[in-house]
Formats: sequence, C-alpha cells, structure tokens
Amino acid sequence: MQNKEIRLASRPAGVPTLETFQFADTEVPKPQGNEVLVRMLYISVDPYLRGRMRDRKSYIAPFEVGQVIKSSAVGEVVESASPKFQPGDVVSGNFGWRLYDVANADALMKVVPGVSPTTALGVLGPTGLTAYFGLLDIGQPKEGETVVVSGAAGAVGIVVCQIAKLKVCRVVGTAGSDEKCDYLHRELGVDVAINYKTAGNMVDALKEACPGGIDVYFDNVGGEVSEAVLPLITKGARLVICGQISIYNSDKPPIGLQPQPYLLVNSATMKGFIVTQYMNRFGEGIAQLAQWFTSGQLKHAETIVEGFDNTPQAFIGLFSGENLGKQIVKI
Amino acid sequence: MQNKEIRLASRPAGVPTLETFQFADTEVPKPQGNEVLVRMLYISVDPYLRGRMRDRKSYIAPFEVGQVIKSSAVGEVVESASPKFQPGDVVSGNFGWRLYDVANADALMKVVPGVSPTTALGVLGPTGLTAYFGLLDIGQPKEGETVVVSGAAGAVGIVVCQIAKLKVCRVVGTAGSDEKCDYLHRELGVDVAINYKTAGNMVDALKEACPGGIDVYFDNVGGEVSEAVLPLITKGARLVICGQISIYNSDKPPIGLQPQPYLLVNSATMKGFIVTQYMNRFGEGIAQLAQWFTSGQLKHAETIVEGFDNTPQAFIGLFSGENLGKQIVKI
Repeated sequence: MQNKEIRLASRPAGVPTLETFQFADTEVPKPQGNEVLVRMLYISVDPYLRGRMRDRKSYIAPFEVGQVIKSSAVGEVVESASPKFQPGDVVSGNFGWRLYDVANADALMKVVPGVSPTTALGVLGPTGLTAYFGLLDIGQPKEGETVVVSGAAGAVGIVVCQIAKLKVCRVVGTAGSDEKCDYLHRELGVDVAINYKTAGNMVDALKEACPGGIDVYFDNVGGEVSEAVLPLITKGARLVICGQISIYNSDKPPIGLQPQPYLLVNSATMKGFIVTQYMNRFGEGIAQLAQWFTSGQLKHAETIVEGFDNTPQAFIGLFSGENLGKQIVKI
Repeated sequence: MQNKEIRLASRPAGVPTLETFQFADTEVPKPQGNEVLVRMLYISVDPYLRGRMRDRKSYIAPFEVGQVIKSSAVGEVVESASPKFQPGDVVSGNFGWRLYDVANADALMKVVPGVSPTTALGVLGPTGLTAYFGLLDIGQPKEGETVVVSGAAGAVGIVVCQIAKLKVCRVVGTAGSDEKCDYLHRELGVDVAINYKTAGNMVDALKEACPGGIDVYFDNVGGEVSEAVLPLITKGARLVICGQISIYNSDKPPIGLQPQPYLLVNSATMKGFIVTQYMNRFGEGIAQLAQWFTSGQLKHAETIVEGFDNTPQAFIGLFSGENLGKQIVKI
C-alpha cells in the first residue's frame, strides 16, 4: 500500500493556486495505542482553511510550510488498535489530506447509518452544526422575522436558509449566480434570492426584499454585501459573523463601512463564533439536524469533485464560488 | 415672570455653531392636569443630542427646526397640579432648554436628598445608569480582566472607569489631554491613561498598556481609537458601543477598519445599547450607584458652565472635549 499527501508548499499571497500545494509520496502509517487507520473516502474542503495558511494568530494554529493540510473527512477503517472501531466501519473526523491516515479513536465518530456518508461532512457534520448554533443560538430568529443569509448557496448558508424557513421566518439569501439563486428559491423555499453580481445597488435590492428591515443577518462573506445590510437592520437586530470569505485572500486590513453607528442606534448585536465553542451541545445539534433530515424537512446539497489529485483545485474553487452547497472531494 | 427658550435654528452641517441655535422669549406655561411647573437650576448637555439635530432615523425622534431643544435637567418645583410634588421640591427629568417648563409629574423624580442635585444628571442619573448597565450587563467584566474605556474622562467614561476598578479590573482609559489623563490616573485610580492626541501609534500605546490583551472595550468615541483596539481583543471579548462622538458631526458614512474579522477569530461580541432599554432595572442601578457614591467609592466629576445663555456653547464644547466629566449648565 502506497500513501500520498498534500502539503502546504508556500504561504499564498492572495488567492491560493496549485503552486500553493505540493504532493508527496509517503508511507501508510501504523495505528498505535488507541489509533485507527482510515482509508479516505471523502475529503471536505472549507474556506476557513485559508486562514490557517497564513502565519497569523487566529482561532486555530496556522499550518506550517511543508506540513500536510488537515480538514474534515470521511473514511473506512482499515485497521484498528481500538476496540471502538472495526475494519469496515465508516467514520468521520479530522484527517490530513492523505489517502490513508491514522487518528485517535476518541476523535472519530461513526457516520449515521442509512444516509449518504457525505452528510457527515455537510448537514449532519460541522457544517450543519455551524448553521444550527450560529443561527439559533446567536441569531435567535423569531417567527415572522426577516433573516438575511450571505453566501446562502454555500455549505453553511444552505443549511441556515432551511433552518430559518423551519422557524417560519422570511428568508432572503445572496449568492453569486442565477443558478444558485434559482436553487435557493425553488428547491429550498428561500423567499427572495439575490444575485449580488448582477443586482446593482445591493442596499436597494435588499430593501425591496426586506420591506420590514433585517432582524437577523447570518454573514458568511463580509465585504460589500455585508455593508449593504447595515442601513436596513432593525432595533435589536442580531448579526452573526460566521465567515468572511470575500476577504480571506486579502492581506490588507479590512477597510469599509463600519457597523458601530448602526449597532448603536439599533441596540443591535454583532457576534463572531466558532462552532467548536458549542462542542458540549453537539449531541443536541446532530439529533435535531438528523430528525429534520430524515423526515425530509432539511435537504443536503453538495458539489462533488472526483479524485484525490483534484483536492487543491476543489479548495481553490471555493473562492470563485464554484460550489453549490458543501464542496467535497471523492477519493 | 418672563420665560426664554433655545430652539434649533437650523440643522448643523458638521460641528454645531452658535448659529445652530436661536433664543426666543416665551410665556411661562401653566401646569395642567398632572403637570408640574419647574424653574430650571441645572441643564445637562449631552453628545447624543447631536444625533437628534439630524433629520435621520435614530433611536429617538429628531428635533424639528424651530422647536425647543430638550435634555435632562434639574429644577425646583414652582407650582404643581399633582399631589406628588410641592413647590420647593427639587426634581430631575426631561425638559426643554427653558428657564421654566412644565412636565408630567409621573416623568419626574425627586433628587436624592443630602447630595448635590447635579448628581441627578451625572453619577446618579442617566449618565451613571448608562455606565452601570453598559459595563456590567454587556461588558461583563471579570476580576483581573483588562477593560479599555475610550472617552474615559467624559461623563459616562468616568463612571465606567470607576466601576471597572470596583470590579477589580485593570483599567486603561483614553482621553484628549494630559490634565484629563492625570485626573484619571491620580484621582480615579485608572491604571494607565493614554492621551490619544500625543500617544503616536495607538495600537502600540494600547499594546503596552494591555499586555494581556483587551477583554472589555467600552466605546464612547468610535473612530481611530476604536480601530486600534481591534487587533488586541482577546477570545470572547465584549465590545460595548455606547457612543461614537468622533463621528457625530460627520455626514459621511463611517469608513474605516471593519471589526468583523476580529470578532470572528476571537468569538467576540460587539453590542450597541441605549440606556432606556434597561428602564425596568433603573431602581437597581440607582440603588447600587448611590451606595457606592455615598460610601465614597464612586466619585462624581462635572464641569459647570454658568448662565442659561451659555447653554449652546456648553453643548458645542463637548465636541472639542472641553469637559471633564459631566458637562452641566447652571442657570
């Protein structure tokens, strides 16, 4: 058995390119102690990984140059030094971008039986939990309120839109293509989907879509779309900062419209969060998401790229919005 | 008896000037129904009034051109149609900038006996309550944490600094003169007071003053001082948006360093508030402030300008930082 891994070749300046990554042939590791050897089936590529390619303090340590990239993945247990897992089990966890990797059994979970294992990377995994806790715990949408979601057709956005509809809110999503907007409107029941690339003045577009103002804003993108939201927020509005993909590739400090005066006159709250801070409530979140999913109230959406060697390209594609829903690489 | 009032002559562009205001001779009103006629003793001038001079949605309706300006004041009851007050009682409430005005008895409070009536406009009034709820309810400082206060020598800032010290925090204040900084450090026990006009690079100055980062930021000013805070906030930091005096006179949208990426990587919260949202807890707040004040743990600081005719100038002076503590006009 031959192994292969993808390393950070150099810290990218701007949008990562194929030269940011380096392939290397390596050995298949042997599971030690409580470890499990896993053959990767699906690798999740996520925008937040861009932050780890930077040599800068963030909520998670940076990748080192020459080191393997790590992200969520689903794989099949090949060999187990832990009684918790048997060969053939399909598990999810954090792994290197490798064909084979070992992980501590305590950090792995069996995927939900009877559903596509890729859901463990999307609606029933960290992505779904991010949407669930960010929207419900911070956004606190109430029936009849207006929820705006940026990056609405992205992995997290798609789940946020659907949960907001389940909470009987008016939901307005922004996305970067007419196809994505059609999908949001027709398949997910989003009330208004706005293509920010063609909408012209975003404040006007949002004002038309949100006649009662914006009570909750779930922000995946930052930048101009988020600026257009500010003049429309209502008293007591909640602005959830989940991602800022529009600026992840910039090395300049983010300059633009500042939210403070809008927060002040509306007694509004803006809060950043990382899903891991809800770790002790993951069980509750997965249980609710699984119930919605298996009862057909919550749809999973994914874009699958084939082949381990295409992992870098799948990651790079996130920044030009190639994905609808969760971007996944099938090994 | 002759009455006099100060009206909004025109909406100011930029910093208000004496031409923004207009004096008019009027009649002394007669108290009706449940009203009380009050002779003004002290008028409070506050930065937030600038917002009401603008024809724009805010948390409180704008003043109309030709209409009297209104703010908090303390006065002596001259005539009462309500059994709640007798002539000679000293009360606080919201009044027009007038020598004599009437108000509904239910909206007035007797000032705390035995202390200067001006405290009803400062530490034992809306100013103190703003500091109390903003810092404790939103900022939630814990023992040993670092609290940075901008506009620290202003009416609210001075109370915030002292409450933060009572909560055993490291307190760093910013102000616009060496005299104010001396006062904060020597009289109020602020650990480090930074003169933002002479400090040079504010990020460096704050970094030196806050070696462990900034856990709570109480913002009265906005602008550059607030931008310098962002790179230094800690995980879970709370940023309280109480005022933005540095931009109240600008008609341009506030462009500058955006806080979203800093809130995201630190799971931090930024929240605007208006003290009136705590109305149902004012009793609790005043009781605690009065206990600290009468026991000598909380000092009142005020700058008193003499003469009703100088009310406009006292207000204008707020924007060049003429006041230490609460700016009050003695009638």
